[in-house]
Amino acid sequence: MINKINDKPHRRYNILTGEWILVSPHRTKRPWQGKTEDKKAIQTESFDPSCYLCPGNERASGDTNPDYNSPHSFINDFSSLLPDTQLMGYEEGLLKAETEKGICKVVCFSPDHSKTLPVMDVEEITKVVQIWKKEYLELGANKDINYVQIFENKGAIMGCSNPHPHGQIWSQSSIPTEIQKKSRQFKQYWDQNKRSLLSDYLTQELESEERILATNEHFVALVPYWAVWPFETMIISRRHIQHIGQLNDEEEKSYAAILKILTIKYDNLFETSFPYSAGIHQAPTDNSEHPEWHFHMSFYPPLLRSATVKKFMVGYEMFAGPQRDITAEQAANRLNELSDQHYLDKMT
Amino acid sequence: MINKINDKPHRRYNILTGEWILVSPHRTKRPWQGKTEDKKAIQTESFDPSCYLCPGNERASGDTNPDYNSPHSFINDFSSLLPDTQLMGYEEGLLKAETEKGICKVVCFSPDHSKTLPVMDVEEITKVVQIWKKEYLELGANKDINYVQIFENKGAIMGCSNPHPHGQIWSQSSIPTEIQKKSRQFKQYWDQNKRSLLSDYLTQELESEERILATNEHFVALVPYWAVWPFETMIISRRHIQHIGQLNDEEEKSYAAILKILTIKYDNLFETSFPYSAGIHQAPTDNSEHPEWHFHMSFYPPLLRSATVKKFMVGYEMFAGPQRDITAEQAANRLNELSDQHYLDKMT
Ligand SMILES: O=P(O)(O)O[C@H]1O[C@H](CO)[C@@H](O)[C@H](O)[C@H]1O
Ligand SMILES: O=P(O)(O)O[C@H]1O[C@H](CO)[C@@H](O)[C@H](O)[C@H]1O
Repeated sequence: MINKINDKPHRRYNILTGEWILVSPHRTKRPWQGKTEDKKAIQTESFDPSCYLCPGNERASGDTNPDYNSPHSFINDFSSLLPDTQLMGYEEGLLKAETEKGICKVVCFSPDHSKTLPVMDVEEITKVVQIWKKEYLELGANKDINYVQIFENKGAIMGCSNPHPHGQIWSQSSIPTEIQKKSRQFKQYWDQNKRSLLSDYLTQELESEERILATNEHFVALVPYWAVWPFETMIISRRHIQHIGQLNDEEEKSYAAILKILTIKYDNLFETSFPYSAGIHQAPTDNSEHPEWHFHMSFYPPLLRSATVKKFMVGYEMFAGPQRDITAEQAANRLNELSDQHYLDKMT
Repeated sequence: MINKINDKPHRRYNILTGEWILVSPHRTKRPWQGKTEDKKAIQTESFDPSCYLCPGNERASGDTNPDYNSPHSFINDFSSLLPDTQLMGYEEGLLKAETEKGICKVVCFSPDHSKTLPVMDVEEITKVVQIWKKEYLELGANKDINYVQIFENKGAIMGCSNPHPHGQIWSQSSIPTEIQKKSRQFKQYWDQNKRSLLSDYLTQELESEERILATNEHFVALVPYWAVWPFETMIISRRHIQHIGQLNDEEEKSYAAILKILTIKYDNLFETSFPYSAGIHQAPTDNSEHPEWHFHMSFYPPLLRSATVKKFMVGYEMFAGPQRDITAEQAANRLNELSDQHYLDKMT
């Protein structure tokens, strides 16, 4: 029955958001005469004197970066959210707004300007995991912060303005739209079954094996059945934890290890430093218990056919809903054929 | 009270989707060291022998385009949806999918390869409006088609693979996510007030004048209070109609006239052929009455600072929700300062 549906135009249901995505598997043969991206040269310099994230350099704010030698976080000089905004609401007829408080941070993954997650070693990546954990717990403890969004924009085509390996954290008072959707779906399943929606999903995926990319003792990387982006993937914790703050030492290392394998596969796919936005979704820090939530991380990479041709989420996708041309299973097969060794052989 | 909120980080409520967007008005000074787009040369040839949309040329399918001299529509050679898909569902544990039927069409706006809406004259644009109307009515009459999405992807950075002036229509059995959101909001307001949500919104906007860009007897162009894209705009019909099929002759012309003015302002903003995705949202064609629905068209343009620097909807935006750096009022002011004459003076 699977195969009967998979080669026809169909919609798949995203159990985490409650929304549908359109799959057009017959359309991969479409020629591409449109925009192609520049293939970026690989960064080779470990230090760039003009980079505002390298150790010891001056930032736009006038501050000087410390001479850091492991992952380093600081308040974003161009924070989109500010901690001292006075709270007020505005409502006039059909116009409705309210001020928003928050704290935005930058997390440098490494002092080395030329690194990226796939070419860092597992010990170094473990320190990134640890700083994410620390920030989630610290920011989350702030009474004004009810959600902590940890993410990475990698590559110029993902709006990243500096190749120095770094991610961001935007934390805020209100619960963002995407989190509200997932909270609703998690909660409904929890109330009905007293089990984590993602634990049950993971069990099913591990049985079928069709979309599994990598596993270790504590984590699984897979292409979700409802993937939107061509090579979208998820990392799910085997243990039903609500947030990164609950990882133990062993889990921190396992998380780092699976992050490395997944991002190596990505780089190997088109032999390029593979662009994506990645983000962690986890329990709000709103002082409620969230037994329904299950920690996970998603990768939304735009490349479709090569290092220079991406999928555009425009037109139909903006006005109607997401659409993709290759199935999740085709994407999983492609990724599974790739080596766990980085194509530049920088593996340690 | 408006001004007090407008210069602080705040969230605005979108009455049409029920979702919030984050506005960070203090962040416009942020320097940009990231990706810039190529500034595209303006098309000057009226006929391109290698263009698969020009009259008389051969298409990928092997079909030859007729020698058309007014807007022309045909079935997309790489349709994402197919009319003859056998309907079936699939459900296995937490995996859920169903096949989808549909018809995808391409609409050439003009035989002239070098044209775009802002440089076409109002009579020509009226014919585009008429073909949209005809397609909506014809496709909508098909018992398998319950929603007709009319849209245009303009410019290479919006995933458009051919500069020949054209749009698309994807019509399908199920009601897409974005339409479901709007249906819900329209319905709730209608049930409570027995008035169109957008009629009331329009009245309020016309009174305040703050975000109005252009008006004529039958249509208003404005920057919605909850705009997401930097220069996002909407065209709303003054009359409470549910869909384009209800436009009378005069309204067709007025719609064409306001389309011309709005797209001229867009081109004048950065003196470039301004890229965007535009789409019409209107009543589903599912054989129900939809008194709650109010026809409108939205423009989602990506450019932020210049012809080469766009806003990236990545990271925070993908994982949490939309965010913008300039307020809707600042965008409206910028657009209002611009002439109604095209900067290339191609106006007829
Ligand atoms: O059909 P086209 O113009 O080749 O393709 C373009 O529009 C489609 C509908 O918005 C999108 O799915 C594609 O990603 C985009 O490149
Ligand atoms: O903060 P940055 O890296 O300058 O900016 C990037 O990430 C932000 C958060 O995802 C986005 O709002 C910007 O559009 C993007 O260019």
